[in-house]
Parts: sequence; structure tokens; C-alpha cells
Amino acid sequence: MKLSQYYLPLLKETPADAQIASHRLMLRAGMIRQEGAGIYAWLPLGHRVLKKIEQIVREEEDRAGAVEMLMPTIQQADLWRESGRYDAYGKEMLRITDRGDREMLFGPTNEEMITEIFRAGVRSYKDLPTLLYHIQWKFRDEIRPRFGVMRGREFLMKDAYSFDIDEASARHSYNRFFAAYLRTFSRMGLTAIPMRADTGPIGGDLSHEFIVLADTGESAVFCDKRLLDLPIPGADTDFSKDLQPIVDQFTNYYAATDEIYDEKEFEQKVDEDNRVSARGIEIGHIFYFGTKYSKAMNALVTGPDGKNTAVHMGSYGVGVSRLVGAVIEAFHDDDGCKWPMSVAPFHVGLVNLKPGDADTDAACNNIYKGLQAAGVDVLYDETKARPGEKFARMDLIGAPLQVVIGPRGLGEGKVEVKRRSDGAREELALEAVVEYASSAVRDGLSHP
Amino acid sequence: MKLSQYYLPLLKETPADAQIASHRLMLRAGMIRQEGAGIYAWLPLGHRVLKKIEQIVREEEDRAGAVEMLMPTIQQADLWRESGRYDAYGKEMLRITDRGDREMLFGPTNEEMITEIFRAGVRSYKDLPTLLYHIQWKFRDEIRPRFGVMRGREFLMKDAYSFDIDEASARHSYNRFFAAYLRTFSRMGLTAIPMRADTGPIGGDLSHEFIVLADTGESAVFCDKRLLDLPIPGADTDFSKDLQPIVDQFTNYYAATDEIYDEKEFEQKVDEDNRVSARGIEIGHIFYFGTKYSKAMNALVTGPDGKNTAVHMGSYGVGVSRLVGAVIEAFHDDDGCKWPMSVAPFHVGLVNLKPGDADTDAACNNIYKGLQAAGVDVLYDETKARPGEKFARMDLIGAPLQVVIGPRGLGEGKVEVKRRSDGAREELALEAVVEYASSAVRDGLSHP
Repeated sequence: MKLSQYYLPLLKETPADAQIASHRLMLRAGMIRQEGAGIYAWLPLGHRVLKKIEQIVREEEDRAGAVEMLMPTIQQADLWRESGRYDAYGKEMLRITDRGDREMLFGPTNEEMITEIFRAGVRSYKDLPTLLYHIQWKFRDEIRPRFGVMRGREFLMKDAYSFDIDEASARHSYNRFFAAYLRTFSRMGLTAIPMRADTGPIGGDLSHEFIVLADTGESAVFCDKRLLDLPIPGADTDFSKDLQPIVDQFTNYYAATDEIYDEKEFEQKVDEDNRVSARGIEIGHIFYFGTKYSKAMNALVTGPDGKNTAVHMGSYGVGVSRLVGAVIEAFHDDDGCKWPMSVAPFHVGLVNLKPGDADTDAACNNIYKGLQAAGVDVLYDETKARPGEKFARMDLIGAPLQVVIGPRGLGEGKVEVKRRSDGAREELALEAVVEYASSAVRDGLSHP
Repeated sequence: MKLSQYYLPLLKETPADAQIASHRLMLRAGMIRQEGAGIYAWLPLGHRVLKKIEQIVREEEDRAGAVEMLMPTIQQADLWRESGRYDAYGKEMLRITDRGDREMLFGPTNEEMITEIFRAGVRSYKDLPTLLYHIQWKFRDEIRPRFGVMRGREFLMKDAYSFDIDEASARHSYNRFFAAYLRTFSRMGLTAIPMRADTGPIGGDLSHEFIVLADTGESAVFCDKRLLDLPIPGADTDFSKDLQPIVDQFTNYYAATDEIYDEKEFEQKVDEDNRVSARGIEIGHIFYFGTKYSKAMNALVTGPDGKNTAVHMGSYGVGVSRLVGAVIEAFHDDDGCKWPMSVAPFHVGLVNLKPGDADTDAACNNIYKGLQAAGVDVLYDETKARPGEKFARMDLIGAPLQVVIGPRGLGEGKVEVKRRSDGAREELALEAVVEYASSAVRDGLSHP
């Protein structure tokens, strides 16, 4: 993408009302624009990151055996009356009346709708387990939306749902998502810690939040330091096999959010040296809630004994739009974002130091085309702005690699490559750049 | 994907209230489920088609030079008061009040919001043209939603917007989308005819609808038969160059929707032999409306003369979810869908005639893995259903190729391949199947 043809409205001033780094940087870098309280438009740069995060989530859901579908944003009130949550949900639910005076709502979550879909389509235990997910915009009418996309009202969520014949198989489905989430967040460069958590309005008795430690997190969390270094399940994990050993490895150490934190238990189970008491950002939440919805909504299947039985369910959420903010909280400095390669809006920022100079233009165009042909996402700054402005812009948007080409280096056949993560610079031969960048993209080398 | 792990709730009965083929087949094949009047959940099979169509639309927008972003579904009423459309839009606008008594709405289109975004980010003619698009769910509170996804209330639309310094360059932007739409629909196997059309509530004085001829279409249309055979712009089209010759080629022949149809003009311009009077489905609509919104909303840029000037705008829509229905209307028979390769939910349906038979299972597994490794989307029916049921199911969901493997053929090292489009069957050597299918996918061979 050539910068002159892109839409990248950077802000010169730091927005005064943005309290945390990710919110400030997303506004400054032209990633989002506020269109209402807790409602954002995703400008092209932000949209690219959102899509890359969404795609990682999708790939790991698929790997875990879940099947993608898409439910609508607008739901009927009557569906929520079946579960009893229509009145219980409170003011966070955005209620809507259409021209025919039908009561509807903008879905804050989808347990009711997926249960309705399941009960219409599945009759026998032989068709289980059923694992479905979708990635769709939700709305929760927060009384105080804040922190940009971290706590917006309209937000993108991946929510998955599992249906099983009994508790043991439901537990295996739960473990699938537990393991999938470890992989999902790790691929974005994040160290997510599964923590026992309150089940809240979803219900049920087994639940883990996946938390990234960050000073700007909204929750106080307590855990064992050794959790931060556990191995992540590999890409070759067989999700149809027993995953309990993976889950045990993580749940053997103490980790809890403040809602269910117990000081005595914490001090008893964790040596003083290993105690982490910090703040965290919730980026995923998984629930097993048994037959809560299936009984209320009559979602039954025929069991092996020929009798009807209510299915055991779980639900599994990932905050896709929130993750954009969470990744920035983890990877930034005062100058801007420092994207991990896997979710970077552009892998490479290409800077032409002297547009109009025939040799420099030709060299840049060659590199630009070579990178594109190699599948590297490149933003090419061919504008007439001053070098200082170009460098600051590239630092702000945070492409993991910056390739800088000017007449002086070209005289010796050299270009400069800067790594955004640590500022390291090196000179490369002109003809080595494309291979260098493609192999960095393949290897995910941005945070060595 | 193995069928036993998929979610494919077929309907045995033809739904009585579904009046047109696409609606009936989408319900029967488990592609969608109705969740309210004009509101549908996209079940896994339907979702796959929706995503493939969306991706073709995206690739052709990118090729034409438009930049993707994403605006929220919920908009503020005040934005629409600036253009004067808040009161004018009528009951089709779904109006919403939040917990803070703010007036909002579920966006039916985005001219106002994109104009607000543009005016905040662009100051100078030097930054033009600006071409932006997004693919987002819209809501129009139709009084009589019908025909399934063809006229739903919640629907997926691609809408693009162009901003130019004057009418001449705005005309070039208009031509970009005109040419891009020809490519977009052609890649889905559709013959879309651009027709002069009324501009309706969007406004402006230049507008074309892109129409697919179909008996079940809602509009009466009139055109010159020669339009059906014009060449489509190639993938190597340079969208920065003059596109007027392409547009002229299509607009030189008479084509109009009934809203602006003139019988005398039609008979004068079109020989009797070439007159087509038919019904059509609108799948795209492009508008040039000049400064209508930019003046009302104060979207100005500094021109070359240093003076502020209102930008010239256009908007360009594609009905992404409607296209799923439109493709089925064009390609189906009584037994089910006959997908063009480019948008097929699965390229290949693999049928195991004797699951449990070791040789047949092994052969099927080999083919299944080989197809997946080759990037072919394959649905593998390894269930214990009867062969007749399996064949009917594959015909209904309409994968372009069916590969049928059983002990009898295997004895001679043969498998049967059936082409869904015309029912042609041939026997292939077992080891030739993967290459046969991959080359059919590459070549898009489903409607020879």
C-alpha cells in the first residue's frame, strides 16, 4: 500500500480524554475514530489489526474442532423470556422496538439463540458433541464506557458454544477451548493466565478468565509466578484426545481474580517469592454451566437409553476488539505501537528518503513490489514529507520492520533496516531486503 | 470437514412459506435459520458461501483502489440531522434510545458517518481522491420482509464512498466501481447488467443499478440483448487509467429499470430482435451525488486555488447477503444448489459408500487428506447413512464435484466423479482424483 493512496489521519495532539496508552495511541495513529459513547469506527489501520486478530482466533477455533457460523445482531425479546434473562439482564441490554411494535434487542451474548438453533437441529446423542462459534458485533449499554475499545459498548466478540450428552464430555469440550485459548493469545505475543473466576450472569459452576497482566487492567488478580512460563500447547495438539493434562498443568498453580480471591489460600499455596499480585485485562472467559439453559429452553436429545435428556452446555468468549487494545498495552513506548509480527497492520514500513530521485524511486519500487510478491504487508511512504516526519509516523504506527532507502546508502548498495521492538538497526545489501523481511514475517521475529 | 463433525441440519419438508427457490433451498440445505421477521442466522453451510462472496467483493474493491475500514452498526441521530435525512428517512430506519436517553439508530447506510469521518481527516485536495469501503451489517425495517435473505431486514452490505475535488475526477471514481462491479459479479458466475436507475433517497443525478435477470426478481427491467455478451474487464485492468471506454461499452446499449423506463426510447434504440423485457434482481447500485452531503455537512477541502471547496461524492453498494440468494436463483434445480466453484461452500463432496470397510475407509481418508493438503474445500460423508440419502444430500448442498468411493470401483482402482452442474459422470483412477479436483478448483470449472 502506498501511503499517498491510503487513509491514515494521524492526530498531532494527544487526546486529553484518553486515559490509557492504547486508547491514546489508537487515536493518534488513526486506527479508530469515536462515533458515540463507547462506539468506534475502525479506520483502515485499526481495521487491519482487528482482522488479523480475528483470523488468529478463527484458526484456533477451527483447530479445536469448532464450526463457524454467524448469528444476527438483532434478537427477539421472547427468546430471552424463555431463559428468564430478559428481565434479569438489566439496563446493559439495548432494548429496541420495531415499526410493528415487536420487542427486540441488540444481542449482548448468544446463549439463548444458539440453544434455540441447536434444539431445532439436533435430536440424538449420536450427533454430539456440537461445537459452534461466531464472530459478531455485540452491544452492551455500559453506564460508563471508557478506555477506548477496551470497554466499548459496541464490540466484536468471538463466542463459542458446546453441547454434550453429559458432564464428562462437556468437560472435554471445556478443555478444548481452554487449550485453544492458550494458543490463540500466545500467537498474538500475549501471556494469558487462566484464572478461576466468578460466573456472573452467565451462570454455572466452572469458569476461567484468561487474563493479561497490565498496570492499566481493570481487575486485581493474584497468581503464582510460575504460570507465566508454562509451555503453550503446540500446533500439532490433537484436540480429540484427552486435554486434561494440559489443563491440570495450568490449574495446579494458584490464580484467581479478586472476585473469588482468598488471601489465606493464596498465601498457603504460593511461596512468597512466587506471589504475583497485579492488575489484569480480561481477554477471554470460558464457562461450563451444565443444563441451565437447556432445561429452561427444552433443548433435549435422545440418550443411549432412548430417553430424552437435557444437554450439557458451555460458552466461550474472546474479546476480539478489546484484544487490539490489550496488545498495544503490552507492546508500545512513548513513540507509538510496537506490534508483534502476527498482528501488525503492516509488517514493513518502507521509507523513501528522496522521492523524485530516480535511483531512489527505482530502488524503492523494486523493494515494494518484491515485498508484495512475497506476501509481506508493506506500507510505502513515497510522500514528500521530511525524513523526520516519516520516521515519527512509522514509529507511531509501529510496523515491526522499517526499511529506509536513500541516495547515500544506495551509493554503496545498502539500505537501513530498523527493528521497531528494540530500535536495533542494521545495514543490508539492497538485494537482501526482501528475503530478510519475508523470513522475519515467517518466523514472527518482532520480539526477539 | 467430516460430516459427522459438521453442523448441517437439513429440512425434510419444503417450508410452505418460502415462495422462491433460493429461500426454499437455503432452508432445506441448512444454510440459514430464521430468527425473526427478515432476520436470519447463517448456519455453517450458508456462512461459508457468505464469506466466499464477501471475499470476492473485497478483492475487487481492493483492486479498484478502495481502502477497507469498518464503521459501527449503531449511529447517532444527530449525525443524520446534519444531512436532514433523520426525519426524511421514515419508518425503515430502526430508531433506538439508549439508557442515557440518547437517540441512536441501526445504520441503514453510511453516507453521513463517512462524511463526518472524511471531514475530520482530510484538509487538502492533494489528499484526494479518497476511496473507502466497509462490509457491515445494516438494518432496514422493511414493512414486508420476504424471499429469505433476498429482502431481509438485517443484511450484509458492502458500501464504498468516494471523495473527489471536482466532477471530472468524481466521474473517474464512479467508473472505477462500475468496472469493479462487472468483475465482482462475473467472478460469481453472474451476468450483471448495469442499468440506468432512479437515485431514490440517496440523491444525485447519475446512478446505475447492477441487475441479474431472474424470473423471481422484484423489478421489471428492459435492456438490449447484446449487453449479455459484452467482455468483462480483465484482472490486469489498470484502475488508475481512463475507464470511460469500458463504461461506454456498456452504457451505449439501452438498459433501464421500470422506474425510469421509457417505452418509446426503448423501441427506438433497440431492434425488436434484441429487446429484452424481463424481471431482475438488484445486486449492486452506484451513485454519483456531487456535493449533496458535503455541502450539508461542511466537508470541505482546500483546492489548488487556496479556497475551500465542497468535495464531490459518490456511494457504491453491493448486497453481499442478497448475493447468496441471487446465485442460487441463477444456479439450481429441483434437487438443490449448483454452486459455481468460486462461491461453493465446499468444492468437493466426498462420499464413502461403505464406511467400516477397511479398504474403502483407507482410500477415502487418503483422498480426503490429499484434497485438504491441496487447498480443496471438501465435505467428507463418512456417516452410516444409506447411499441414496448421501447422494440426495450432496445434490442438495450442491458441491460442484462429487467423488464417490466404494468397494466395487476400488477393486479396479476406480472412483466415480460427478459434476453437479450437468450431472456428467466419469470414472477416474484413484490416484488421479486429487489433481483432477485441484485443477477444477483452479480453473473454476463448474459451469462449462
